[in-house]
Amino acid sequence: MRIVALSEVLPGEPVTNRDLAEKFGLHEQWLDSMTGNRSRYFCRLDTARDVPKSTGDLAYEAARKAMADAGVEPEDIEFLILTTASPDHLMPATVNLVADRLGINNIPTLQLTSGCAGALQGLFTAKALLASGYRQGLVIGADTCLKMWPSAKDSRQMKPAEMVNFALFGDGGGAAVVSADKDGPGLVVEHLFLRGIGLGRKPAQIVKWFGAEGAIGGEAMGEEDYKAIERHVPDIARQILDELVKTQAWELAEVEHVLTPQLNGVMTEKIREGLGVRPDQAVNCVAETGNNGNALPFIQLRRLMEKIKAGSGQKGRVLVATVESSKWIMAGMALRHA
Amino acid sequence: MRIVALSEVLPGEPVTNRDLAEKFGLHEQWLDSMTGNRSRYFCRLDTARDVPKSTGDLAYEAARKAMADAGVEPEDIEFLILTTASPDHLMPATVNLVADRLGINNIPTLQLTSGCAGALQGLFTAKALLASGYRQGLVIGADTCLKMWPSAKDSRQMKPAEMVNFALFGDGGGAAVVSADKDGPGLVVEHLFLRGIGLGRKPAQIVKWFGAEGAIGGEAMGEEDYKAIERHVPDIARQILDELVKTQAWELAEVEHVLTPQLNGVMTEKIREGLGVRPDQAVNCVAETGNNGNALPFIQLRRLMEKIKAGSGQKGRVLVATVESSKWIMAGMALRHA
Repeated sequence: MRIVALSEVLPGEPVTNRDLAEKFGLHEQWLDSMTGNRSRYFCRLDTARDVPKSTGDLAYEAARKAMADAGVEPEDIEFLILTTASPDHLMPATVNLVADRLGINNIPTLQLTSGCAGALQGLFTAKALLASGYRQGLVIGADTCLKMWPSAKDSRQMKPAEMVNFALFGDGGGAAVVSADKDGPGLVVEHLFLRGIGLGRKPAQIVKWFGAEGAIGGEAMGEEDYKAIERHVPDIARQILDELVKTQAWELAEVEHVLTPQLNGVMTEKIREGLGVRPDQAVNCVAETGNNGNALPFIQLRRLMEKIKAGSGQKGRVLVATVESSKWIMAGMALRHA
Repeated sequence: MRIVALSEVLPGEPVTNRDLAEKFGLHEQWLDSMTGNRSRYFCRLDTARDVPKSTGDLAYEAARKAMADAGVEPEDIEFLILTTASPDHLMPATVNLVADRLGINNIPTLQLTSGCAGALQGLFTAKALLASGYRQGLVIGADTCLKMWPSAKDSRQMKPAEMVNFALFGDGGGAAVVSADKDGPGLVVEHLFLRGIGLGRKPAQIVKWFGAEGAIGGEAMGEEDYKAIERHVPDIARQILDELVKTQAWELAEVEHVLTPQLNGVMTEKIREGLGVRPDQAVNCVAETGNNGNALPFIQLRRLMEKIKAGSGQKGRVLVATVESSKWIMAGMALRHA
């Protein structure tokens, strides 16, 4: 499988720590040092008409841009995959609403429920479809926390530990046009693995959905176990990179580019150091984009490609490690510039 | 791909039209004639501990039964797919919670957002994974409307047209163990196609999810356009069967078993007649189980296999036509007894 083109979509203007501090009555410096994130982007219903306002909008824009970059038309796309943790509805799957807007029809469409490993879950599924005979498809990752925002009433009752979620996360979309034809520009996927590893491990992230009544008895919509995330994600990232370099017979120190899990600015930097990945190897963007889940690896890869195009990065090998902490998934990918 | 074993799970005791009529203040005879369904099953929180109470419970039971029937252990399963329109949470994907309960670990797990074509979407994805090198996997379909039930307050304000949804739908789970090895008992999938066909067509079913606040301004959780469903589903089912018999070079009248879309007792019977499928060919169960979405085709196939095992049905060819009306998906499958 070759990644032919990549895209990135961030809705509206960046939201700074000062903006967030004012909204929630927090200290700007505390947000700076706690998260290491400087900004993030959020879908808002009151922005201009062409600013994405939903997962479907983000996914549509990301798909449109990736297709334009690859120079492909709707009829060139043979399957469409969307991965998201924040679908616009339970039914229909958002992917099918996006297909309609793209002018894509009469092909298989799949939507995966996924989080921080979602981009690789989508690419994993795409790789299987290409192995089964398809030649070209589109994989999208998109997420928005719009419907998770607390009301003004609730936010006054929230603890800083809960509010900090809104400083970690952000909204975004990303996409990749993928092809079975390995000859051409882009990135060739040489190895890709995906594994649920939740046996006997408690979920470290839960995001609920509610019916018309909303939460019964004040039940919280989300739960995060940051201690478990802090403890396990670095170890799992290490396992992923170890396995990838072993399979590829690469030396980590010689690999040109490494994409590590993008939790937040502080933790991503800590993980990078712990893994022995040099700053010049690391492809990080969470401090500027926020953690936008299913979109992030596409955004990291796109920024890497832009950097190389601009002459400030060299072609070569790329390693990607993603970890989903909700019920623990590890996914790794080794690529090489075509 | 061969379907090695199948399972069926229906929670608790059947809920009759009399039960529903009493609960909602409707007429039993009206429910009988309007839906043609005699019963359905619903997850309830107040039942015995071992009765399924969630999509995860239904999926776990369905998986356990299919694995037992196939005589396979957790370590024999190389991938796990769950398709559902009613996940227990947005995150983690229910499939990963089910994997833990099954003792399944270290394999790819995928969860698809899907409705009435979901079973075939799961099998389609499984077929691609088998083509890419996996040898055996498990595909589960499960749905519950538990969180869609109106409160006592809301149900008093509902119109009969809204309440009738609860007479059409039901809860259930089904699963299939699938293998790349075509030699052995079960059903060999000779052809399987899946297509989103929503271009320019309005969704005929919308199911929303809400945040902690619930519906803002009394927004309805679900919308159904029965007229569109009644108009389009028979036509699409006809296209699916036409394409399958053409591809297979089979005569519809000679095919031993035909699984048609299971909307409700009345419409399923009307569609069967319109398609020219004889009662002795048709494999229908919706009038007894209710429309339990992602589970239904597994339940139809399992009942067919049981009938044959009991000597009251003959081995041979099987056609499956499923249609998702939410944003329009068609999926068809041609099988043959191994």
